[in-house]
Amino acid sequence: MRPAVVLLSGGLDSATVLAMARADGFSCHALSVSYGQKHSAELDAAARVARHLGALTHKVVGVDLRTIGGSALTDAAIDVPVDGVREGVIPSTYVPARNTILLSLALGFAEVVESRDIFYGANAVDYSGYPDCRPEFVAAFEALANVATKAGVEGHRMTVHAPIIRMTKAEIIRRGAQLGVDFALTVSCYQADATGRACGVCDSCRIRRAGFDAAGLADPTVYR
Amino acid sequence: MRPAVVLLSGGLDSATVLAMARADGFSCHALSVSYGQKHSAELDAAARVARHLGALTHKVVGVDLRTIGGSALTDAAIDVPVDGVREGVIPSTYVPARNTILLSLALGFAEVVESRDIFYGANAVDYSGYPDCRPEFVAAFEALANVATKAGVEGHRMTVHAPIIRMTKAEIIRRGAQLGVDFALTVSCYQADATGRACGVCDSCRIRRAGFDAAGLADPTVYR
Repeated sequence: MRPAVVLLSGGLDSATVLAMARADGFSCHALSVSYGQKHSAELDAAARVARHLGALTHKVVGVDLRTIGGSALTDAAIDVPVDGVREGVIPSTYVPARNTILLSLALGFAEVVESRDIFYGANAVDYSGYPDCRPEFVAAFEALANVATKAGVEGHRMTVHAPIIRMTKAEIIRRGAQLGVDFALTVSCYQADATGRACGVCDSCRIRRAGFDAAGLADPTVYR
Repeated sequence: MRPAVVLLSGGLDSATVLAMARADGFSCHALSVSYGQKHSAELDAAARVARHLGALTHKVVGVDLRTIGGSALTDAAIDVPVDGVREGVIPSTYVPARNTILLSLALGFAEVVESRDIFYGANAVDYSGYPDCRPEFVAAFEALANVATKAGVEGHRMTVHAPIIRMTKAEIIRRGAQLGVDFALTVSCYQADATGRACGVCDSCRIRRAGFDAAGLADPTVYR
């Protein structure tokens, strides 16, 4: 089995991506990043999901993006918005260059475990306002990965897989359910409490809830 | 004055780059990264250099690359090589995807301070064995920066400056000296002691010492 590095946030998108990578026959090294999120519930969820879906290893890398700030997710002085998504506006939950940073760490980990495949759960449907969730970003990162690494220099092909990038939330949920993902283990809320209970009103909660509705599946999320 | 983000390691290359960015008329936000290096002397040096060369701000972001390992600089079990550089071989001091990670953090910081210019001290002459010190890597990262960010999406041009990439160490030292860089403040050694005294035998010490010789300037390095 070929080794892959899978970025795992603890949310339902990356859980589905891990299940898809496993179904594609990869042995998966899961990587989560503790970047100064306001809560640790999603990292706890990532550890549960990694075990549940048979990841070979699971590592958590710390990078303190609070030093940089500039986001409602990393700066205690900026509230998480709860008024819904607005079309064409980059929301305050956007963390500057976050996915570039996460993929860079995944790239370093891929070099260490000699993997040429990185999976991540970018989604351009619900997160059209985030520059680093778009297909052109994935393509640019893949091009970078092929000149940035020992493997690339030696002529091997590095691939960045973003298998859910064009799927709706309902499609992601249905695909995950088919692959046996237990979504009760996942946490999507931007401001979950310590036990992982969701607020129900942040953008991420709204998108998740609407996704279960549209998929016609019961929402296992515990709201506080 | 336009704002720039300058990656500052504490070594002489990035000190010269900061002086060059200042000479080009940028107001400079210096960024250092504490990534699990074996010693903190270079971060202390970075703070001194930032003050000395008039950086507007200086931030240190922590990212624990020891979790990933795979390098003599981040894994206590791997010794720093002291037998000299070998042509065409990636040395064990290569930190997997390090420059991609450093530039990603610089990119996030650039978004926060609304800068469209990132400076970093890559050098393809002495570090030809490091994939992420080559001009094609810089070009690929710049292409990524232009699709990864809010500024890029809004049609602004992000530029990654690597002004010393094709310079020899002697040329870098002469340029820095012309610009008033006090190299006694810098630390290049891969295994400096707590006070910044250099080992004199690691690749970085050898390259630095040969550079002062070739430049015909006195080497202010304190060797232990």
